[in-house]
Amino acid sequence: MNDKEALRDSVQLIEVPTGTTLFEEGDEGEIMYVIVEGEITLSLLGKTLGTASAGDIIGEMALINDASRSATATAMTHCLVDPIDHDRFLQMIQESPSFALLVMNVLANRLRSVNEQLATAGR
Amino acid sequence: MNDKEALRDSVQLIEVPTGTTLFEEGDEGEIMYVIVEGEITLSLLGKTLGTASAGDIIGEMALINDASRSATATAMTHCLVDPIDHDRFLQMIQESPSFALLVMNVLANRLRSVNEQLATAGR
Repeated sequence: MNDKEALRDSVQLIEVPTGTTLFEEGDEGEIMYVIVEGEITLSLLGKTLGTASAGDIIGEMALINDASRSATATAMTHCLVDPIDHDRFLQMIQESPSFALLVMNVLANRLRSVNEQLATAGR
Repeated sequence: MNDKEALRDSVQLIEVPTGTTLFEEGDEGEIMYVIVEGEITLSLLGKTLGTASAGDIIGEMALINDASRSATATAMTHCLVDPIDHDRFLQMIQESPSFALLVMNVLANRLRSVNEQLATAGR
């Protein structure tokens, strides 16, 4: 059994059919998701911010800030996601500096991308 | 001596005169800064992305991604900053989950802010 199969066997994985809204901007958010399979689009006020796929994490911002969802996540294909709640998130950060760095990396990459879009908007 | 005075006594603090460019978009970046005193503006392609002040961190993105500076940082007032290099950054993440959460928090807040600006741009 490889890592992906082992992950699939976890009882926690959630199936997300194509077109499903996983969470919506403004919602209370208490869970982040690791995408195991499929593609999920993030949008705000109807504008696409980016697309996340297998190996990416989404929804982590509401966990980090204890604030509402900053964007809407919609499954563009059939997806399989691993939900991580607040307690598991804190535990993973405490136990694994590399998980903390992964989360920072995702945020920093996303920030680079939006910064560039913002700086060139309207030019 | 209070915490701020103790921090000032650290040999590592750097004085940044008003108007100084601490780093420029596209530069190689190997150091992040904790702002101890003053205000620093972050801009990209001449457009202001935000202002950071005492207690904020800047320049962490180049450390996280091992990539170039994503913005230009300019001191709007006389500033005092604490430089943190890559080794000290990794050490702080390993030793202090709360530092890791602080960095994530800064990134997530900044991302929320630019996402909103982007979503409402041109409306």
